[in-house]
Amino acid sequence: MSADHGKQFTIYMHAGGPNPWKVIIVFEELGLTYHMIFVDTSKQEHRLASYTDKNPNGRLPTIIDHKNNDFTIWESGAILMYLVGKYDKEHKISFSGFDTIATANQYLMFQMSGQGPYFGQAIWFTKYHAEKIPSAIARYDAEIRRVLGVLEVILADKEYLVEDRVSYVDLAFVPWNWLLKWLPNSADWEKDFPKVAEWDGRLNARESVKKAREIRADALKA
Amino acid sequence: MSADHGKQFTIYMHAGGPNPWKVIIVFEELGLTYHMIFVDTSKQEHRLASYTDKNPNGRLPTIIDHKNNDFTIWESGAILMYLVGKYDKEHKISFSGFDTIATANQYLMFQMSGQGPYFGQAIWFTKYHAEKIPSAIARYDAEIRRVLGVLEVILADKEYLVEDRVSYVDLAFVPWNWLLKWLPNSADWEKDFPKVAEWDGRLNARESVKKAREIRADALKA
Repeated sequence: MSADHGKQFTIYMHAGGPNPWKVIIVFEELGLTYHMIFVDTSKQEHRLASYTDKNPNGRLPTIIDHKNNDFTIWESGAILMYLVGKYDKEHKISFSGFDTIATANQYLMFQMSGQGPYFGQAIWFTKYHAEKIPSAIARYDAEIRRVLGVLEVILADKEYLVEDRVSYVDLAFVPWNWLLKWLPNSADWEKDFPKVAEWDGRLNARESVKKAREIRADALKA
Repeated sequence: MSADHGKQFTIYMHAGGPNPWKVIIVFEELGLTYHMIFVDTSKQEHRLASYTDKNPNGRLPTIIDHKNNDFTIWESGAILMYLVGKYDKEHKISFSGFDTIATANQYLMFQMSGQGPYFGQAIWFTKYHAEKIPSAIARYDAEIRRVLGVLEVILADKEYLVEDRVSYVDLAFVPWNWLLKWLPNSADWEKDFPKVAEWDGRLNARESVKKAREIRADALKA
């Protein structure tokens, strides 16, 4: 595992899926340098041994930290925890204090086990499933609206999820929300969930997120 | 929030779903005392304000730590991290060392975002969805077999996921595997995934897991 590119990290990613962008956003927030390798899932490159040797789950992203003996880690939520735990010592976008970190973990787990999977299934049945199944689409659409409703309650009296300041946990929700426009019943989501919309707007206005969107737009064009 | 029951923790849970049992198993491993409150989801009790005030997501489990100013936390993965971080100082079922903990987080995230959601959707379409949709059932059945296949690779040359000793991360996978028998194509899963089956057998032989299964069997009868 060489790092001839001279960057601290190598990230294996794809442009379409949301999870790698969480990591790019956090790299940008923390000023960490990274070399992107786009894995072409349409050519099944994520199933090649050269990739599954690093990540047996075959999903994206995976990162390698060339400043830590090529330490390799996958699962976007675990990657974010690694990055802020190791490289955000001043807690710019993370926290100190055991109980506060536990609360941050709680919301990150909600993103990883709630928002992400339901969005993923909604996109699947809306765009990719061979058969059109209205009751499956309706199920996941309803679950996403349920998740947005939960966030609306949580954000009722604060601007950010944890200690009312921006963190990697808020940022983890952003790339999945980019996909809301693909869902059949979510054209008006910002009207129905105004607190979530304001929060999402604040997050998307950050330089880190704008940078990630630019890179993504270029990658999708390529 | 009183703790008249004299136990350290209150846990809000249900008997049918797997996630609360992860927490019971870890309570048992660490010798922590707990009072169980069974929330009747068939009566929509998880949607009552008395519960959503504690957990706006309305899912189970949620725990309250009466020895830590009634600190309240939800999302089973975050609860496990809280419990071992705070109450497993001798690392009986957890780890020290930043990189090892990062690897443990990785596998826990794989459980939370991979195994759990796919199993959950498989059970949904097999048992609860109003319409029988063979292509949806087939999708999730295939995903579960994919997850089992990933675990088979990871466990090829070790007995446990992290540092080859048993931890809360292995134990987090156990209650979902109890549900394999409900899935249409998994009757022979132990034959197809022998390393996973051995691992699962070792975990189910632990006193903590046997205790959880006993409590669960009683609760399902009640």
